[in-house]
Formats: sequence, C-alpha cells, structure tokens
Amino acid sequence: ADVAKGRAKAVQCQACHGMDGVAKIPEAPNLAGQNEDYLIKALKDFKSGARQNDMMSLVAKPLSDDDIANLAAFYHSLR
Amino acid sequence: ADVAKGRAKAVQCQACHGMDGVAKIPEAPNLAGQNEDYLIKALKDFKSGARQNDMMSLVAKPLSDDDIANLAAFYHSLR
Repeated sequence: ADVAKGRAKAVQCQACHGMDGVAKIPEAPNLAGQNEDYLIKALKDFKSGARQNDMMSLVAKPLSDDDIANLAAFYHSLR
Repeated sequence: ADVAKGRAKAVQCQACHGMDGVAKIPEAPNLAGQNEDYLIKALKDFKSGARQNDMMSLVAKPLSDDDIANLAAFYHSLR
C-alpha cells in the first residue's frame, strides 16, 4: 500500500474525516492511527453494501482495491 | 451518561478493544477518544442488526440504551 497515494485520494474524505484523521462532524469516526485491517474491511463492506451509510455507501462504491489499501495505509499512518 | 458505569461494563469489551481503547486484535478498531455519537450509533446498529459482525452482533444484543450511552462515554473519554 502507498501512503502518499492514500493521502492524495483522501482529499475526498477530508470534509468529514479530516486530512489529520480527526473527524470534523460528530457522526463521523476519527480515523487517525486506526487499525489498517479494520479500515480495509470497513471500506470493502461499504462498497459491497454489507455495511450501509448514506455517505459512505456512495463514496466507497467507485474505490478500487488499491484505493482502499492506500486510504487505509494513509489513515493508519496518522497519529 | 456515566463514564464510571461505562468502564465497569467495558470489562466485557476489553479482550478486543482494551480497557485503554487500543485494540488488542488487528480486526478490531481502536476506540480511545472516538466520537461519542459515532460509538452510540455503532452499538445501536449492531444491536438492531443494521450492522453485522459475528462478535459485535452477539455482545451488543443485550445492551440497554443506558449501557450503550455509558460505554460510548467511557471510550470517548480515553486519550
């Protein structure tokens, strides 16, 4: 996984989750330092529909496996 | 919400999420300092079945609304 590519992709996540991984709205989780395996599963579950959320189901749909791995690596890397 | 009651209840969460909110297994999320609203929604969704996870669907089922509020307050309070 590529943290720099994850950071670039995270521009679309920042309104809610921040570029620092600290959520900007109360209903979104903080992601900084979150376990990478957990983040990968969350994004895959939103993409597949196994997990449902109005916003996340929309934004996860077009993500590739590489996008998901890179985003998880980026948010995991933050402290 | 009562942080002390949440801490007492969290004894059943600690094997995976830790009493410090730092996950002890890779597939579990860290919870320390997590947004309280997010934690409440997660527990309610596991309890209702809106969100599915082998472990969490089981352990969330018997939680009362007070239990959920107290657990969320406890994990949110950790840094």
